Amino acid sequence: MNAFEPGPLHKFAFGLRTIPPAGRDSLGGEYPEPIEPWEFVYQLGDIGAWGVAFRDDDLVPVAASTAERDDILDKFTKALDSTGMVVSMARTDLSDHPVFEHGAFTSVDRDVRRYAIQKAMRAVDLGAELGAQLHDLPAAGEGLESIAAGCPLDALERYREAVDFLCGYVREQRYPTRFAVPCELHAPHGDSLLSTVGHALAFISTLDQPELVGLDPVVTQRTDAGPLAGLAQALDASKLFHVELDAHPNGHHGPPRVSDGFFVVKLLQDAGYDGPLHFAVDPDHDSADLWEFALGCMRTHRTLASKAQRFADDPEIRDAVAQCGGLELREPSVGAFSPESARALSIECFDPAALSQRRYRSQRLDQLVVDLVLGLR
Amino acid sequence: MNAFEPGPLHKFAFGLRTIPPAGRDSLGGEYPEPIEPWEFVYQLGDIGAWGVAFRDDDLVPVAASTAERDDILDKFTKALDSTGMVVSMARTDLSDHPVFEHGAFTSVDRDVRRYAIQKAMRAVDLGAELGAQLHDLPAAGEGLESIAAGCPLDALERYREAVDFLCGYVREQRYPTRFAVPCELHAPHGDSLLSTVGHALAFISTLDQPELVGLDPVVTQRTDAGPLAGLAQALDASKLFHVELDAHPNGHHGPPRVSDGFFVVKLLQDAGYDGPLHFAVDPDHDSADLWEFALGCMRTHRTLASKAQRFADDPEIRDAVAQCGGLELREPSVGAFSPESARALSIECFDPAALSQRRYRSQRLDQLVVDLVLGLR
Amino acid sequence: MNAFEPGPLHKFAFGLRTIPPAGRDSLGGEYPEPIEPWEFVYQLGDIGAWGVAFRDDDLVPVAASTAERDDILDKFTKALDSTGMVVSMARTDLSDHPVFEHGAFTSVDRDVRRYAIQKAMRAVDLGAELGAQLHDLPAAGEGLESIAAGCPLDALERYREAVDFLCGYVREQRYPTRFAVPCELHAPHGDSLLSTVGHALAFISTLDQPELVGLDPVVTQRTDAGPLAGLAQALDASKLFHVELDAHPNGHHGPPRVSDGFFVVKLLQDAGYDGPLHFAVDPDHDSADLWEFALGCMRTHRTLASKAQRFADDPEIRDAVAQCGGLELREPSVGAFSPESARALSIECFDPAALSQRRYRSQRLDQLVVDLVLGLR
Amino acid sequence: MNAFEPGPLHKFAFGLRTIPPAGRDSLGGEYPEPIEPWEFVYQLGDIGAWGVAFRDDDLVPVAASTAERDDILDKFTKALDSTGMVVSMARTDLSDHPVFEHGAFTSVDRDVRRYAIQKAMRAVDLGAELGAQLHDLPAAGEGLESIAAGCPLDALERYREAVDFLCGYVREQRYPTRFAVPCELHAPHGDSLLSTVGHALAFISTLDQPELVGLDPVVTQRTDAGPLAGLAQALDASKLFHVELDAHPNGHHGPPRVSDGFFVVKLLQDAGYDGPLHFAVDPDHDSADLWEFALGCMRTHRTLASKAQRFADDPEIRDAVAQCGGLELREPSVGAFSPESARALSIECFDPAALSQRRYRSQRLDQLVVDLVLGLR
Repeated sequence: MNAFEPGPLHKFAFGLRTIPPAGRDSLGGEYPEPIEPWEFVYQLGDIGAWGVAFRDDDLVPVAASTAERDDILDKFTKALDSTGMVVSMARTDLSDHPVFEHGAFTSVDRDVRRYAIQKAMRAVDLGAELGAQLHDLPAAGEGLESIAAGCPLDALERYREAVDFLCGYVREQRYPTRFAVPCELHAPHGDSLLSTVGHALAFISTLDQPELVGLDPVVTQRTDAGPLAGLAQALDASKLFHVELDAHPNGHHGPPRVSDGFFVVKLLQDAGYDGPLHFAVDPDHDSADLWEFALGCMRTHRTLASKAQRFADDPEIRDAVAQCGGLELREPSVGAFSPESARALSIECFDPAALSQRRYRSQRLDQLVVDLVLGLR
Repeated sequence: MNAFEPGPLHKFAFGLRTIPPAGRDSLGGEYPEPIEPWEFVYQLGDIGAWGVAFRDDDLVPVAASTAERDDILDKFTKALDSTGMVVSMARTDLSDHPVFEHGAFTSVDRDVRRYAIQKAMRAVDLGAELGAQLHDLPAAGEGLESIAAGCPLDALERYREAVDFLCGYVREQRYPTRFAVPCELHAPHGDSLLSTVGHALAFISTLDQPELVGLDPVVTQRTDAGPLAGLAQALDASKLFHVELDAHPNGHHGPPRVSDGFFVVKLLQDAGYDGPLHFAVDPDHDSADLWEFALGCMRTHRTLASKAQRFADDPEIRDAVAQCGGLELREPSVGAFSPESARALSIECFDPAALSQRRYRSQRLDQLVVDLVLGLR
Repeated sequence: MNAFEPGPLHKFAFGLRTIPPAGRDSLGGEYPEPIEPWEFVYQLGDIGAWGVAFRDDDLVPVAASTAERDDILDKFTKALDSTGMVVSMARTDLSDHPVFEHGAFTSVDRDVRRYAIQKAMRAVDLGAELGAQLHDLPAAGEGLESIAAGCPLDALERYREAVDFLCGYVREQRYPTRFAVPCELHAPHGDSLLSTVGHALAFISTLDQPELVGLDPVVTQRTDAGPLAGLAQALDASKLFHVELDAHPNGHHGPPRVSDGFFVVKLLQDAGYDGPLHFAVDPDHDSADLWEFALGCMRTHRTLASKAQRFADDPEIRDAVAQCGGLELREPSVGAFSPESARALSIECFDPAALSQRRYRSQRLDQLVVDLVLGLR
Repeated sequence: MNAFEPGPLHKFAFGLRTIPPAGRDSLGGEYPEPIEPWEFVYQLGDIGAWGVAFRDDDLVPVAASTAERDDILDKFTKALDSTGMVVSMARTDLSDHPVFEHGAFTSVDRDVRRYAIQKAMRAVDLGAELGAQLHDLPAAGEGLESIAAGCPLDALERYREAVDFLCGYVREQRYPTRFAVPCELHAPHGDSLLSTVGHALAFISTLDQPELVGLDPVVTQRTDAGPLAGLAQALDASKLFHVELDAHPNGHHGPPRVSDGFFVVKLLQDAGYDGPLHFAVDPDHDSADLWEFALGCMRTHRTLASKAQRFADDPEIRDAVAQCGGLELREPSVGAFSPESARALSIECFDPAALSQRRYRSQRLDQLVVDLVLGLR
């Protein structure tokens, strides 16, 4: 099954968060041997991954001395050099400490907000030192102890102030860093600012230096037409800087939903996306499973990518796509406005009854896709 | 209960769609007497409403002759003049006819797309003739018979082409019309382009004449923090042109959820929104109920508005808001970036453990809100 | 791909509702040629289906004269005899007419309730005349115009009264008919009595003749662990009389979610379910697509069934299942209670820390399932 | 506002879980002073609560010596005696330790299952010693590391075996203990066995001693018609042993949804429920807020109960309920089956068109409820 073997050109990435927490699993059970960040890099390199992402505190613990910090960076850099792996993204952890319980950039406490921005500056420094081109901004919690207490307009303003400040900082430091706003393709939870691709895109257009900021959407397993449209909107705006693939389709809590992934992989492929493909995963796996799991994520993605390629090449599928009108949507409807074209259109005669008779035979195409996904063609 | 009586200054509006369809209710039962559009205006005026909205085909049936059209407009204009009511918004109906089953501006069939744009131009003419300042664009259906057939990037491009064309048209005609994109505060269905406030805001920033286009969000009954943040984002961008209040909180299919509405009303009031307050409602009510229902919608809104005012005035609530930090969020965290301020921040010392000790007593504020909503204060 | 060809032994069934409404599609477009019920049977028989289901009014229109009724039944019976097809289920339509807008068996209007029961008796007669062994009860609507008006305890009592009465009727008529309560594996809408498998099972145990009534769950495309557990509970109670397979996984409104279906098909197969496999589908397909669609439904199901068989036979998968502990769950934990076994258990010594060290390597099994579904093994 | 003051007759109860964990809050922040279980009882008694619930390990830590256990029980009993508070329910904690990560009664590991049953026996002993009449069973997790590994039929069988064993144990010990199965009114998560009221009711009817087991549903803040129907079904079966009121309506993460609660309180009141009213709450509150919060929960409930009483007494509301048909639903539709009544019904003549003309004016009733909830009447 060599065609599905991952390699650096596929740009698969994993975060340090994939590692089961040293010394215990998520529920407090003992682990025999913690995995150090540099060991993680060596092993990821071995199985064909391309990048590693980290949060500041996961790589360099808050309590680390300068000597400990230097030692960690030294070992981590050696592992990167030796394997050819890159840092795909750095992040500031602004959620785990209780000080951020009620928000970070949008906390009601001004000192908490200032501390959060300071922590982000230091994390940006760390990322830049290790060659990260991307820095993930914190998800924008609502920042209010009680929704009754404050105005979301103020929270939005504070979040913008923080991002503008950080953009100023990377410019002044001449870092190559760009930022990515984490967001969802749809927003089931509804508990934060900028929850969807759309909200985040709209926010970016209000920044001082919008060119420095893009998106890092989580692509979940349940991808209907709407979320695909959101992904398309991010691609249309050239703001898809990073993609987080929800790795649950690969199992554990529910049945794998691999076929949903097909259309995501196909859209990214059709649009020529060549950024990182990051597998987001909760760290509730034992280390025996870890590499099997990482390999499985990449293998499933390669399989779907190969099916997406066959979709593009298969003559019968191409014919069914054409019958469904897939090509006609690329033709302009009316072109740019001009008084002449408007006048011409206004007197054109249409027969809606006749137009509504057109049949697309979409069931045929859908079945071809089912057959393709299930391996029948 | 005079304080809760609606009047023109409250800008309450209803659409012709509120009228039970002439001759039958939604399930086929007989109605004794259809309500004509002008009668609807007279009666709305009587009970204190300010505006009436319509879809093109609901006011002037597709099959109407020129004489019939003139007669309708004559009677409708007289009703507006006599009552002082205004047309709060016009819409193009691009969903009811089977020709639009697979999309209008984004149909794969180029002729369907052209027909849709022509129909929108005529509806804009009709609205302008009757003094409408706003025109609602059609919701953007995915426009593909099968998601397998086409690319959502193309659908987005076609939708943009249509909106740009229509903006060119109103400019050339020197109409005062602005457009509004219907959208949701959150997007539970996920089956269309531009489904949320965020997606629509981001789309508008890519248009040729973005100043002509704003939002018409549906404000549903289940308004958590995230949707409120979306509403705030629309207000922040000065793009809240119109609001559709889901009238179901007033009952019928489930228990009334009036307390959710409180925070929506409060946010609109805090932000100084002074546009139309349109009650969206399915036409499945008998005419006996119709005016009772319309009065109830306005009365509930006035009650909530009055409670929002009391929230702002009550000293104990103001004190609880202050303790929750509601005022501090207005203070800048760091101000605009400068090398100096960054350097100062980078060496500042914070004590996260001490900062996390702060207590807000939000339960006290929440209980004050419950008491306010339930009428205990 | 002959192994996936459907045949009578697979018990695939479709309802008359699959037929696009004669003379128009769902949005009002014209159809050139309506399909008569008997033609539907002939064609279903041709493509390998086993059963046909109908609602009373779809087979015999309300307005049909006795002669017309006889003619319909004659042609329908001939089609059944000639093809070997059976009537898999009959239903009473208690939703389409406005008289049932606020419920049927649970309407607040006593005459509506009596009319509904009379209509159900006649539909049971019709089904019995055509050999149906199963009759689908109407979904139990809330039965109240406003939730504020009445008590759901009364609605439950009225629904039970109606079902008990109908059971008495089939006994007295010596029909072989059993009833099925429609329900969901999970209940996203929450707008009716007896909405889930669990609620319906509990209700059946309170009937006068519980042995006459079972379940007809809709198996949707999004089947997580919980819904599978509900399906298992119905099988455990020997009450799975009928299954409605939501045919949307086959496409149209969203990407196909065939892999979800895998675990449903596997559970039915493991538990030896041999009842009808009914494909539920909205009638919004043109007739050109109809047979392609029906064939696709059956073909996909056969493919998944074949994969479920391979799951059972593949040695590597069997090994992974064993490592995951799949077989141990069949062993009793403690057996039936006895004072001796309780005493023995109470003094047994367990080491929770050691027990929590066990690793299952579930990622390996999950990847094997992904490979199986995608056709890699 | 004395009418809203809580007292023992209202049977309000809180669990030890309401206490912020000693020494730290949910995110790791320091707490100055942990609250001991007996202090919790004294303070609850002071503010008018009636009962206290606990999990075994929250009252007596796993590592406690016999002397420490005796000391705890002594102090706790004294607090109960001195305040007149009762133990409203005891629970076995079968979720917090990693040994139960993949289920307790349904773990694939037979030793884990046996350990879980042993732990439950000891927790039942502890509850009985302190006078608890109710014992909450653990939620029935799926019990499988991977859904692919096993059959939910086996998990159901193991859960039943455990409950039957525990029922045998309380009988033999002559404890007055009854058991309650935790469940939801609707099941949004879908990740467990017996997730809804319906599933749990159906399960109970398959037990050896069904009379010993009832329900403990969580009544969430979003209560539509369906969940109310589920609550009614539990009441109809006389199986509502306990109610967990989700205390989030009182604020914190979202706006209070007090009006939803109105219909729950009304149904419990209408049906004469007189069991415990337990406020379920996450322990993420600081201790300053704790008593304010507990008082708020009870105060809001008393207010809604008082409004439910006014609903029953108000002549205008009674008139509107009657017009909506709320009383007619209590009348039998057809009575018990008899050949005679069936024959009479079969020849009765109904006029569906006329029946569908009936109008209920439900909007009037809905508005009266809104006015009542908002304090306008």
